Amino acid sequence: MKVQRWDASAWAWKSEKLSKVPLFASERFFLDLYCLEPGQSQKPHAHAGCDKVYLVTEGRGRFRVGEVERELGPGEAVMAASGEVHGIENDSGERLVVLTLMAPPPSR
Amino acid sequence: MKVQRWDASAWAWKSEKLSKVPLFASERFFLDLYCLEPGQSQKPHAHAGCDKVYLVTEGRGRFRVGEVERELGPGEAVMAASGEVHGIENDSGERLVVLTLMAPPPSR
Repeated sequence: MKVQRWDASAWAWKSEKLSKVPLFASERFFLDLYCLEPGQSQKPHAHAGCDKVYLVTEGRGRFRVGEVERELGPGEAVMAASGEVHGIENDSGERLVVLTLMAPPPSR
Repeated sequence: MKVQRWDASAWAWKSEKLSKVPLFASERFFLDLYCLEPGQSQKPHAHAGCDKVYLVTEGRGRFRVGEVERELGPGEAVMAASGEVHGIENDSGERLVVLTLMAPPPSR
């Protein structure tokens, strides 16, 4: 049994861009921790045939799904269904951590 | 944008059995909060063609994946790949909350 930590001990940061910490993956999904320093972002994009869920774990940021943008904080989550544009901007002054699911992974 | 809460405000309990709180679902996955009172369990079972991930959010419990059992607590997570037997037993004295992913959902 491979136990993976997904709390603060697993967070990792990159000065140049959003850091993606892989937790689990298969041909059916991936589950990552996205760690965003203030000012970092995931630019709006879309995937045909893949659903994505963002679950805010720590901090606050601006989330886009479709044409709607909204600030979300800890304990809030949103889904971008297949084909919906989605992105994150950490426009807060604090670090932002987002548990991110994609099913299936986009590369298959 | 439908914002779903996944923190303590979303937890719900049933006296007779494990409570499953649905967060998001599609033909590609479901994401639930499993809320287990002390003594409640999800009996060991397996799904062909579906992967499952348990992420412990609150409390402690005994998790089985394959032939291995282990006590997990907050910030720990395990994956049961397609076909692997998996289950949860809340053998602690406290409530247990587990963020649970299945991809794809078993019923399709």
